[in-house]
Amino acid sequence: MTTQNQEPWRIDFLVSELRRLRLTSLEARQRRDHPPKLPSRKALTQIVDDLAAALFPNRLGQPDISPEEVDYFVGNTLASVLRRLSRQIALELQFNAEQNQQVLDAHVEALALTQQFAAGLPDIRALIDTDIKAAFEGDPAARSIDEVLVCYPGVNAMMHQRIAHRLYRFGAHLSARMIAEIAHSATGIDIHPGAEIGESFFIDHGTGVVIGETAVIGRRVRIYQAVTLGAKRFDKDEQGILVKGNARHPIVEDDVVIYAGATILGRIVIGQGSVIGGNVWLTHSVPPGSQVTQAHVRS
Amino acid sequence: MTTQNQEPWRIDFLVSELRRLRLTSLEARQRRDHPPKLPSRKALTQIVDDLAAALFPNRLGQPDISPEEVDYFVGNTLASVLRRLSRQIALELQFNAEQNQQVLDAHVEALALTQQFAAGLPDIRALIDTDIKAAFEGDPAARSIDEVLVCYPGVNAMMHQRIAHRLYRFGAHLSARMIAEIAHSATGIDIHPGAEIGESFFIDHGTGVVIGETAVIGRRVRIYQAVTLGAKRFDKDEQGILVKGNARHPIVEDDVVIYAGATILGRIVIGQGSVIGGNVWLTHSVPPGSQVTQAHVRS
Amino acid sequence: MTTQNQEPWRIDFLVSELRRLRLTSLEARQRRDHPPKLPSRKALTQIVDDLAAALFPNRLGQPDISPEEVDYFVGNTLASVLRRLSRQIALELQFNAEQNQQVLDAHVEALALTQQFAAGLPDIRALIDTDIKAAFEGDPAARSIDEVLVCYPGVNAMMHQRIAHRLYRFGAHLSARMIAEIAHSATGIDIHPGAEIGESFFIDHGTGVVIGETAVIGRRVRIYQAVTLGAKRFDKDEQGILVKGNARHPIVEDDVVIYAGATILGRIVIGQGSVIGGNVWLTHSVPPGSQVTQAHVRS
Amino acid sequence: MTTQNQEPWRIDFLVSELRRLRLTSLEARQRRDHPPKLPSRKALTQIVDDLAAALFPNRLGQPDISPEEVDYFVGNTLASVLRRLSRQIALELQFNAEQNQQVLDAHVEALALTQQFAAGLPDIRALIDTDIKAAFEGDPAARSIDEVLVCYPGVNAMMHQRIAHRLYRFGAHLSARMIAEIAHSATGIDIHPGAEIGESFFIDHGTGVVIGETAVIGRRVRIYQAVTLGAKRFDKDEQGILVKGNARHPIVEDDVVIYAGATILGRIVIGQGSVIGGNVWLTHSVPPGSQVTQAHVRS
Amino acid sequence: MTTQNQEPWRIDFLVSELRRLRLTSLEARQRRDHPPKLPSRKALTQIVDDLAAALFPNRLGQPDISPEEVDYFVGNTLASVLRRLSRQIALELQFNAEQNQQVLDAHVEALALTQQFAAGLPDIRALIDTDIKAAFEGDPAARSIDEVLVCYPGVNAMMHQRIAHRLYRFGAHLSARMIAEIAHSATGIDIHPGAEIGESFFIDHGTGVVIGETAVIGRRVRIYQAVTLGAKRFDKDEQGILVKGNARHPIVEDDVVIYAGATILGRIVIGQGSVIGGNVWLTHSVPPGSQVTQAHVRS
Amino acid sequence: MTTQNQEPWRIDFLVSELRRLRLTSLEARQRRDHPPKLPSRKALTQIVDDLAAALFPNRLGQPDISPEEVDYFVGNTLASVLRRLSRQIALELQFNAEQNQQVLDAHVEALALTQQFAAGLPDIRALIDTDIKAAFEGDPAARSIDEVLVCYPGVNAMMHQRIAHRLYRFGAHLSARMIAEIAHSATGIDIHPGAEIGESFFIDHGTGVVIGETAVIGRRVRIYQAVTLGAKRFDKDEQGILVKGNARHPIVEDDVVIYAGATILGRIVIGQGSVIGGNVWLTHSVPPGSQVTQAHVRS
Repeated sequence: MTTQNQEPWRIDFLVSELRRLRLTSLEARQRRDHPPKLPSRKALTQIVDDLAAALFPNRLGQPDISPEEVDYFVGNTLASVLRRLSRQIALELQFNAEQNQQVLDAHVEALALTQQFAAGLPDIRALIDTDIKAAFEGDPAARSIDEVLVCYPGVNAMMHQRIAHRLYRFGAHLSARMIAEIAHSATGIDIHPGAEIGESFFIDHGTGVVIGETAVIGRRVRIYQAVTLGAKRFDKDEQGILVKGNARHPIVEDDVVIYAGATILGRIVIGQGSVIGGNVWLTHSVPPGSQVTQAHVRS
Repeated sequence: MTTQNQEPWRIDFLVSELRRLRLTSLEARQRRDHPPKLPSRKALTQIVDDLAAALFPNRLGQPDISPEEVDYFVGNTLASVLRRLSRQIALELQFNAEQNQQVLDAHVEALALTQQFAAGLPDIRALIDTDIKAAFEGDPAARSIDEVLVCYPGVNAMMHQRIAHRLYRFGAHLSARMIAEIAHSATGIDIHPGAEIGESFFIDHGTGVVIGETAVIGRRVRIYQAVTLGAKRFDKDEQGILVKGNARHPIVEDDVVIYAGATILGRIVIGQGSVIGGNVWLTHSVPPGSQVTQAHVRS
Repeated sequence: MTTQNQEPWRIDFLVSELRRLRLTSLEARQRRDHPPKLPSRKALTQIVDDLAAALFPNRLGQPDISPEEVDYFVGNTLASVLRRLSRQIALELQFNAEQNQQVLDAHVEALALTQQFAAGLPDIRALIDTDIKAAFEGDPAARSIDEVLVCYPGVNAMMHQRIAHRLYRFGAHLSARMIAEIAHSATGIDIHPGAEIGESFFIDHGTGVVIGETAVIGRRVRIYQAVTLGAKRFDKDEQGILVKGNARHPIVEDDVVIYAGATILGRIVIGQGSVIGGNVWLTHSVPPGSQVTQAHVRS
Repeated sequence: MTTQNQEPWRIDFLVSELRRLRLTSLEARQRRDHPPKLPSRKALTQIVDDLAAALFPNRLGQPDISPEEVDYFVGNTLASVLRRLSRQIALELQFNAEQNQQVLDAHVEALALTQQFAAGLPDIRALIDTDIKAAFEGDPAARSIDEVLVCYPGVNAMMHQRIAHRLYRFGAHLSARMIAEIAHSATGIDIHPGAEIGESFFIDHGTGVVIGETAVIGRRVRIYQAVTLGAKRFDKDEQGILVKGNARHPIVEDDVVIYAGATILGRIVIGQGSVIGGNVWLTHSVPPGSQVTQAHVRS
Repeated sequence: MTTQNQEPWRIDFLVSELRRLRLTSLEARQRRDHPPKLPSRKALTQIVDDLAAALFPNRLGQPDISPEEVDYFVGNTLASVLRRLSRQIALELQFNAEQNQQVLDAHVEALALTQQFAAGLPDIRALIDTDIKAAFEGDPAARSIDEVLVCYPGVNAMMHQRIAHRLYRFGAHLSARMIAEIAHSATGIDIHPGAEIGESFFIDHGTGVVIGETAVIGRRVRIYQAVTLGAKRFDKDEQGILVKGNARHPIVEDDVVIYAGATILGRIVIGQGSVIGGNVWLTHSVPPGSQVTQAHVRS
Repeated sequence: MTTQNQEPWRIDFLVSELRRLRLTSLEARQRRDHPPKLPSRKALTQIVDDLAAALFPNRLGQPDISPEEVDYFVGNTLASVLRRLSRQIALELQFNAEQNQQVLDAHVEALALTQQFAAGLPDIRALIDTDIKAAFEGDPAARSIDEVLVCYPGVNAMMHQRIAHRLYRFGAHLSARMIAEIAHSATGIDIHPGAEIGESFFIDHGTGVVIGETAVIGRRVRIYQAVTLGAKRFDKDEQGILVKGNARHPIVEDDVVIYAGATILGRIVIGQGSVIGGNVWLTHSVPPGSQVTQAHVRS
């Protein structure tokens, strides 16, 4: 009776049950003693925000920044954020190594990887500049370049994508994926970090957009909300296990426009300058200059 | 003139106008004197995060946790989070009682309800383990179980759903609903806590998924973004007021796959092992093993 | 070698590259020396939360608020939040003036604009009350008015919209747009602050809804997830530049219902009391009382 | 060996040893099962800060407060802070009751006590106004009344003392003592909340001042750093246990000045208008108008 | 009865009483309508911490700072902290101007004053370096220069004093005083910002030290806890009001040592190289090389 | 002119001047390239708070802790705090090694040192229990054991001292010193971590107490505010440099009482059971049972 008040939650029981489940689950993966650590989503969220601040210090950095100090702000922010990024990547590399039972000096490799990434930051800034310009020119509701930078979810998603894609290319797949999901949660735009996307890419509204791991997108492409660039089917090997990593998403050439709700599936090619109409369902390649719309079967 | 500077906002006027509106609104609900308190969304957000940390301490709990301390972390987290959950539920029960002009000891009832919920935590963990495994096996882009746990919005949504569903079943409807909306905001996946969902459920991408209050979903079901399991029509009583709570959403049997954008409406049954194609609009039952696709009316 | 350890990131190089890109980008906009400041998204997020707390102090304000203190809470919150809003608007006006090379006393104009906005707060509260009532009456899953206020993303989106729309009408376009995007990120509902929306508007589920800048929506309209009220085409002037601001989105009259996934494009009129079915694609006006559904071409 | 890595801290051992010590310690006090809660120092720190903000809203309250809103700020702050104070006092009353094995409704009694305290807040403000004025007039380095309010540790200590003393008189001894220690930590001035202190009390510099529980201080008294108003001896009862609560500290009459480092011990009377010199050691009463200095034995 | 529950605190009454007291108090100072704002203690606390971080980036700045980034950190910190300091000083200048019914452009004057202050930062760093060295050489318990910098309250107090003294000299008396009190609260060392102190000043332990507004201290002086350099008497004018600002504290020449508890009062001169013993009470000048101790009157 | 606006602070100049000073200062210590990191005061502050919470979970730990969970709280807190302590100690060991140009595995040594420290935690708790009991029995104003634990600065200081002293003995001198200064700042009580202090030590009021590095204090000793146990002189070697570390502070035997303001200097012995009166200045040993008071030279 008083016992019940003393132990309202039966903590000892819950702890032992959860331990049992945890060990069962870990044992199945042969690493009972020592689960490696993962990168932290919270840390990566701050890292992307700080990279954005360093790339666009007057708009996304410190408020009230004066011309005299802007370089100091950029340099100080970069040093701090690259150090933190390197730590997260080291966690990922250590995690991968333990998964594969390898030994490595994760910190040294992470440093090298982060140095490669850092060297590409000016390219990232230049690419995002083209995305911003594309949004400004493509949306009649946009009133200024700055409004586009601070308001448009598509630009926010591309900020994350262009950062995540570089990390992905250099081998930090998990960190890249986590950054992509941070953008997905904030914008409803789900772009796998493996996707290759050319300059001047514009996503309007964006909620529900899905772009798959092996998609390839050219320059000056424009897409709207709820567009899917997906896989048609998943290949399996002889044991019936999914084959991972093979090319299975569309190639979209330069200057294509894809309107809202269109679904484009499989390793097909959308030829340069094509226009794909709203809600279109497309599973075969179309030549350059195509105009694809829904069949006119409505009342 | 100086008066204007002294009273730029005309606060006294605004306060009295807003009071008038507030009282009008409260009077309509016969509880002018004493508006009961509601559970807090902010508190519930933290509660779900802490439950997740207790269920998956090595991945979602404290970073750097050592094997020696993991049980202490789990026990300490559970005690704290269950106490806080019980308080939120007491607010809800008190609120319901005042709505219905009942008298109850909300804290005693909330404690009993939370104890029931606590006893089911190992089951929740076991179910989520099956969801994670389903995602890993169903997505060629997934590289590890851990990546699935920390990256996939569908897994995040199910973590919330399996917690919310238990609370809903035990009578904490409002808290359950608030938890479901926390997941909806973070993932774009909108699952009513009333929905019954079997083990090994996998939602890919997820943005735009809607699953209604009385939906029933079997084991090993897989759905993609923008799938709706909705109601076809809402029944009204003789006074033209909506009838609340009757079964009006689909039953999806074991091993069904539903591709992106499919809309399935009404209390129909999708037979075991069926595959529903992308963008399909379906309002009648289909037998086990069906393959439903859109009519081929596109160019 | 040691040099490499001393300069792992080559900060000096990155800083100078980023400076070069920044200056190039700023020069293109003729304001190299002195980039004006923008309103802060973080500040606006808090401002909308505090306005909501002042409008609904018992539900969204301070927990545990007593009847004796509620007016003090409302008055104190209003004074603080209006002062902060005025500061953000001053930043926007200053920004616009510099864009247009005008001189103005931004603080005086911002004060006047904020005073106008403040005077309309009781109207905003009254409108949101109608939205809440519409949701409660329109959803069989809703169990109480309070549940609707604290749980429904559609109500949350309209709280932002009705605030943003007033700011937009008074000329604070950028702040209004930023507030709209705060709601978009939290709910997946993307309503341009320019849209005019009548009382008792109900959005169910909401993810993927897009409502354009010049849309006009009557009273007692109900829409579901993934509905688009968009533009059909964008007019360009003789230089091929988009014409900004002309009416290009639908007019939806009183008592219309639009089911999930419907796409309605162009400056067309949906006549009073019409019902537009799920997934319908509509680019021409329909008379009052129309029932529009998809062609029945499914298997 | 690996065991050592797995259990670096021997947590299980430490936990059981500390439990053993804790139970031993609690058993000695006959309340093993259920240690009552104490008021929180952190909560009381915030409570005193908020009371000070309500008493001096233009100086210690919200920055940027406008005349139009000052009453709203004061009312809102009072409602919040009194509610929190009442909760802390309830903890104390519950604690005392369990110590004395009584039963009481701590919340009801705490409410009554807090109401008494609240009614005296205007008196507290009026008294502190006299303290501020005394400091301004007594220190040649003071340049304005406002400087005195925001800079002088003696004024800060008296703000705490006048609040703590009221709580002490109404029976919240422990909360009062905790507030006194908050001031002691911040200022080095240690005034027991039991001390009775008249208007216009000025402590300059203040570090090292000690004023005992039963001290009585008149009006317009001025003291400097390191002054002690202490007890000469502690009476013990027949069992050799200290007698608690009897009058054992000095009575200082109106208009007395006590210079730095003076030590005044025992239930003696310092007559009106006396001046006690620096470093004086005094253990007997002196008549009104006395001038007491050290013997002139220095080189 | 229920009324009592509705108004437990009688907020309306308290608000009106406190308003009455506030207006009475403000009227006495002829500025009822518009109380000017004061600098913020919290802001100044952060400002001093950030100045210390810029002066000693490797020890008091960001942890983990690399040689490559240290200048960026210093520059970025300085820009931010000087901007904030300028704002606090503007508040003070505005406050002073309103006290004296002057009109000024507080922001312009504050900028100029802060520029003067900034130009002296290297001198401040150099002086503090001498203080640190003096402490290291003067205390047998000190094990390293770095220990002295991060542990010694005397060094912390001098960091504040050397900053506050510059602000005081340039006319920001109130901000300077507030900074001095921040140090007083943290260390128990109370040095008026007006005091002039030469290089290599060492205060050991420090609790209870008081140094007055017009004190002048030479180079290589060493003092211990509870030393007072105070005023002997306060001069009054014909109306009996204290004369403010005249020289009334000691002059301590180079190489003097003053042991714990010594009290030195009045505008006297302690000649170069003198040693003043513990607890000594001294009110007359002593020539260079004096050894002053207490009379030997102890048992 | 506009240049002045662009560079109000002359940041470039300040950065280079401060760099110059920094390098000069570092060069003097022969470690220009690579200043080692120090432990963090902020981290140590939290560490001591968490150790106190683990030692006294019901009073200084989590509020609302239930009997069922207390061990989980203790274990979880210990694991976290010991890990963090070990990291701080590793910084110190690395710092010392670089000072002495040694090479060591700081993390391994820090782990071993922290393990030793951890094993002594039960002893620390037991000692502090005796201090609390001594305070309760020694102060007529103390009303309960719990009041003593949460209110008395002397107990707070001893909590820090007993922790710091163990760290000091195990070789973490700098961390120990930093913890001692945290207590000094909060309480005005300055006890060097090297001091050896027996059980049941009671410091009343405490402001201004100084206890030196080599002091030795027996059991059941009681001291009051402003007592100094200091060094009489500092020995120098042939080069005139202070000899560090030799015994130079008093030995105070069991059951001694020292009243406020007494100054006891040098390696003397205060015999068991002696009573030293207030303000006494003592530089020679006294036999057991002595009663030392000031000469009666007052008026």
